Amino acid sequence: MSIHDEMTALADRAVKASRELAKLTSRKKNTILESMADELDARRADIKAANQKDMEAGKAAGLTQAMLDRLLLNDARIDAMIKGIRDVVVLKDPVGERISLWTRPNGLEIEKIHVPIGVIAIIFESRPNVTVDAAVLCFKTSNAVILRGGKEAMHSNAILADILQEGGAKKGLPDDAIQLVRTTDREAVRELVQMVGKIDLAIPRGGESLINAVTEQARIPVIKHYKGVCHVFVDKDANQDMAVDIVINAKCQRPGVCNAMETLLVHKAIAAEFLPRMAAALQERRVELRGDDASRKLVPAMTPATEADWYAEYLDLILAVRVVKDIDEAIAHIDTYGSHHSDAIVTENESAQKQFTQQVDSAAVYVNASTRFTDGGEFGMGAEIGISTDKLHARGPMGLDELTTYKYIVHGSGQVR
Amino acid sequence: MSIHDEMTALADRAVKASRELAKLTSRKKNTILESMADELDARRADIKAANQKDMEAGKAAGLTQAMLDRLLLNDARIDAMIKGIRDVVVLKDPVGERISLWTRPNGLEIEKIHVPIGVIAIIFESRPNVTVDAAVLCFKTSNAVILRGGKEAMHSNAILADILQEGGAKKGLPDDAIQLVRTTDREAVRELVQMVGKIDLAIPRGGESLINAVTEQARIPVIKHYKGVCHVFVDKDANQDMAVDIVINAKCQRPGVCNAMETLLVHKAIAAEFLPRMAAALQERRVELRGDDASRKLVPAMTPATEADWYAEYLDLILAVRVVKDIDEAIAHIDTYGSHHSDAIVTENESAQKQFTQQVDSAAVYVNASTRFTDGGEFGMGAEIGISTDKLHARGPMGLDELTTYKYIVHGSGQVR
Repeated sequence: MSIHDEMTALADRAVKASRELAKLTSRKKNTILESMADELDARRADIKAANQKDMEAGKAAGLTQAMLDRLLLNDARIDAMIKGIRDVVVLKDPVGERISLWTRPNGLEIEKIHVPIGVIAIIFESRPNVTVDAAVLCFKTSNAVILRGGKEAMHSNAILADILQEGGAKKGLPDDAIQLVRTTDREAVRELVQMVGKIDLAIPRGGESLINAVTEQARIPVIKHYKGVCHVFVDKDANQDMAVDIVINAKCQRPGVCNAMETLLVHKAIAAEFLPRMAAALQERRVELRGDDASRKLVPAMTPATEADWYAEYLDLILAVRVVKDIDEAIAHIDTYGSHHSDAIVTENESAQKQFTQQVDSAAVYVNASTRFTDGGEFGMGAEIGISTDKLHARGPMGLDELTTYKYIVHGSGQVR
Repeated sequence: MSIHDEMTALADRAVKASRELAKLTSRKKNTILESMADELDARRADIKAANQKDMEAGKAAGLTQAMLDRLLLNDARIDAMIKGIRDVVVLKDPVGERISLWTRPNGLEIEKIHVPIGVIAIIFESRPNVTVDAAVLCFKTSNAVILRGGKEAMHSNAILADILQEGGAKKGLPDDAIQLVRTTDREAVRELVQMVGKIDLAIPRGGESLINAVTEQARIPVIKHYKGVCHVFVDKDANQDMAVDIVINAKCQRPGVCNAMETLLVHKAIAAEFLPRMAAALQERRVELRGDDASRKLVPAMTPATEADWYAEYLDLILAVRVVKDIDEAIAHIDTYGSHHSDAIVTENESAQKQFTQQVDSAAVYVNASTRFTDGGEFGMGAEIGISTDKLHARGPMGLDELTTYKYIVHGSGQVR
């Protein structure tokens, strides 16, 4: 069977499953989710055995320690996956929920309700827990899911997908609601993202090359989870103690994630007072600083920043630093070099707060808080499938609501035009 | 200058304009819209002269009478464009409107508000009034717009775009807020829909080949306005008088539009009583009927329907007719052959109403009303840029709200994770 035929058959099965999924009640779905969690708990040995194969292959292939760590499944991580499912059980199911209802002068009653998107393809890398997270969120919203993971986690992903499907089936999960692509051929991704009319949405989660490959090949809608080049702008009217705390948190608390800060912008009116102090606090936490000329005059220990630094998503303990002449220059910098993900201003000045929140075109714009809060859990969504860097359909953290679309149901009594 | 450079420059200017547009108040935007309407009114002679060139070229090129009619701009049509602008003035501006606001346990206040999408490319065919409709709706929602019309309407589109930009500029419309692509080279469309990071959305409005070309070439998000293969299912428990009225309206009131009906499905329990009567009413209105075997037994004058008829968007006085054994078969037919646009059931039976509205996966699902109501005006949106046949971001009629996205504004008092 060619890859094309194989992926077409997979997509056709997913479409069929999506029709059955649309008929399930929330209660039924929760029973199925509980059964998935129980099955994961019961089959820990299978999971660890499969994971062991990936770990050995990974070592043989020379994966870095960081990559091997992301790949590892131990009891604590299996516990976390099980807890993740139980957390999703208690979340409100948006499917079928009314968004709005109005009556037209001719008597037509128009109701707008949340409905499943249909079939969603998730294309991801390395961490096998994404198999469970993504499958469970798609299922809770009655979407059929096609998972395509990285080849280094193939055995782990396969056993997890099997367990979810088999555990769910015990309580009535429709066949093929959760499918994993089992070929490692790259052609499979191209086929999936060109399956117009069968797959409704592709969500790539991973590095730049994965995202670019999907975007270039796709003929179906894509919601990208792309990079975060996040800024903190410390305004002249900042509470400087607060600014130090926010910058330290945004840069150091977890530097390897997309909502971590990459560039610090400082208003020139306070730079001489603030920057040396800020730099000392960062250097104490072993953050490498790369500054523009004005910053380096104040903190000579900084290495010189190049143009490339303003665009960089370091995902590491490195920070670009620039002194700006005013808030307009800060906003222009963010607009030019940022990724429209999460950007913060620290200021007590209300007019600066207003200008910044109005003019910075990012998914999340913060006043006096760390950029690290851009997260489904922190936003109170309960869970997230990721953080969209796109503007269409979903922007920022994608929770259950964002995994649905809507339709109009119109009730009449014989109205014609 | 290459097409690539030309389109890149155009897109860069649009991005710049979008930043300025985001700063305009609703009041200011309405003043600008009024000025556009006044300018159109004042320059009727220019419009008609430019249109005359297109009409002459169209006649020389052998355009059909229907195409020439769509191309024509006379005083009545100019009046309609002016009225269209004034209607948009009174619509509520969604930009900046709060969608929701909540406070997290840590004190963070999260506000979700409507914001402009940014830069929108509208790619359309023949009818020059789309230039005005699209530009005005994009402007009202503070989006910069790039218009690409068909070459047969080039002179008309150019004068209309000039008038809008010049009339608007008198009251402060930012430069390049409304731009028309003035090359007729097809390569321009490819360049536009691959302008990742500059153009945020492409909306193709036109025939199948235009939509397919855009979908295949696009690297940016696309919301398609594709075909409508709409159904009316007359259930066994239908009020048959009502069913006749709805079918006549859905098929005959304006057969050339996407929400017109293309296939009639009749429950076999009432087919013998209903179909001959329905067929007589349709034939009286010169509708050509193409039936399956069961239909043709009851109405022998029908021509035989082929498989292709079930997929057909006739946009003409032709109707495919099929007798189904029950509601499940009706829903399966709609799922298999329909375009998920607008589908109706006529029935007094509440359980059938519920099953149909739940299981038919279309943008608009009707109970006892004509499919012709799928329209921004009829839905009460005041205006529409079209009817999305996609599921992501916007589904069904797209009004002003659907021309916006959202962002989160998060106010804190020094919160860190």
